[in-house]
Amino acid sequence: MPTKPTGLRVYLAGPEVFLLNAEEVARAKIAACAAHGFVGISPSDNDIDISGYAKHEAALRIAAANEEMIRRCDLVIANLTPFRGPSADVGTAYEIGFARSLARPVFAYTNLAGTLLERMRETPGGVNERASGRWEDRERMAIEDFDGFDNLMLIGALEGGAPVQVRDVSHDQRFSDLRGFEACLILAARRFGFDKRP
Amino acid sequence: MPTKPTGLRVYLAGPEVFLLNAEEVARAKIAACAAHGFVGISPSDNDIDISGYAKHEAALRIAAANEEMIRRCDLVIANLTPFRGPSADVGTAYEIGFARSLARPVFAYTNLAGTLLERMRETPGGVNERASGRWEDRERMAIEDFDGFDNLMLIGALEGGAPVQVRDVSHDQRFSDLRGFEACLILAARRFGFDKRP
Repeated sequence: MPTKPTGLRVYLAGPEVFLLNAEEVARAKIAACAAHGFVGISPSDNDIDISGYAKHEAALRIAAANEEMIRRCDLVIANLTPFRGPSADVGTAYEIGFARSLARPVFAYTNLAGTLLERMRETPGGVNERASGRWEDRERMAIEDFDGFDNLMLIGALEGGAPVQVRDVSHDQRFSDLRGFEACLILAARRFGFDKRP
Repeated sequence: MPTKPTGLRVYLAGPEVFLLNAEEVARAKIAACAAHGFVGISPSDNDIDISGYAKHEAALRIAAANEEMIRRCDLVIANLTPFRGPSADVGTAYEIGFARSLARPVFAYTNLAGTLLERMRETPGGVNERASGRWEDRERMAIEDFDGFDNLMLIGALEGGAPVQVRDVSHDQRFSDLRGFEACLILAARRFGFDKRP
C-alpha cells in the first residue's frame, strides 16, 4: 500500500540527466517518490523553451529554471556517485549547496563505495605522503583524509549529519540503480515524520 | 595607490587550499583583495579546533565553519579551474551554490581555457555523437554543448551573467596564478560601485 501523499516536493539532483535513458530514470525516481508519499521534481521536467536562444543565453535560462525548481521544493535527494573523476558531478554539488543555504534538507546516495582517498589511491600515479603526514595526489594537491565519500563540503551538506547512502553497484548501472535513492526516501519520510514505523 | 578600504568581504573559494603552499597563495589573494578595497576571507583562516574530534565530526565542523564564513561575506570569487577531471572542484561548486541562493554575487575565473566539450574531446575515448546530434562521452553520458567553460549551473551562478575570467596558464601554475582572480576583483569593484573608472 503506498504511503498517503504529503505534497512534499523532492528535487531530484544528479548526473543521470545525462544518461541516454534519462527520461526513463526520471520517471522511475518520480514513481518511487510517489510510493513514499513525495512528489518528485526532475530538472528534465522544466518547461522552458530555449529554441531560438543563443547557447550562452540558453544555458542561463536552464540554470535559472533549475534554481527556481529547487526554491519551490521542500527537500533535495542528490545522486553523488562520482562522475568523470573521483568526485561527484559539479552541477549536483552546486545544487545541494544552493538548497542547503535555503535550509532545504539534503539527502544523498552514491553508487560507488569507498572514500575519496581510496579512489585517489587507484588513480594513475596514486598518492604520496607529505612530510606533514598529509596525503597528496600526483599533482601534489592534498587529498582530504576524513574517511569521507567526497569533499567535506558535500559531507556537511547532508541533513542532520546523516550518512550518505552507499550501494556498491555494477559500473554500467551506477547512474540508474535506485536502491540508494529509495533509502534516501525512507530517511526523508522519517525526517518529515510520516514514515511507516509503528 | 591602493583603493580605499570598503570593508566588503570576499570569500575566497577554490581548490588552491589543497596546494602545498596554500597559505602563501591565500596571503597573496588577501593582499590583492586589499589592493582593490576588499577584505579577503580564506577558508584556511577558519579558527576552529578539530583536534580530538573523530574524522567525520571534524569534517562536519570544518564544513559548518566554511558555510558560516560564506554567510558572513558579501561576495564570492571562485577559482573554477578544472580539478581532478574536466570540471571544477566540487567543494567550490557547492560553495558558489550556497552563496548564490543567499544572493551573494559570485565572480569566477579559470586558468584553463576551452569549453567542457573541448576538454572532453581530449579525454581518452573522446566523444561520440548521438543520433539526436547530442554529444556524449565514452560512458555514454551526454556532454553539455552550450559553449560553456563547465556545467551550466556554474555558468548560471555568475553575477549578472558575467563571463568567467579565463586565463590560459601553464599547467604547474594553474592553481596559483592570480591574474584571473584580479580580473574578478576589478569586476567586483565595478559591481559594488567603487572601481577607479573616471
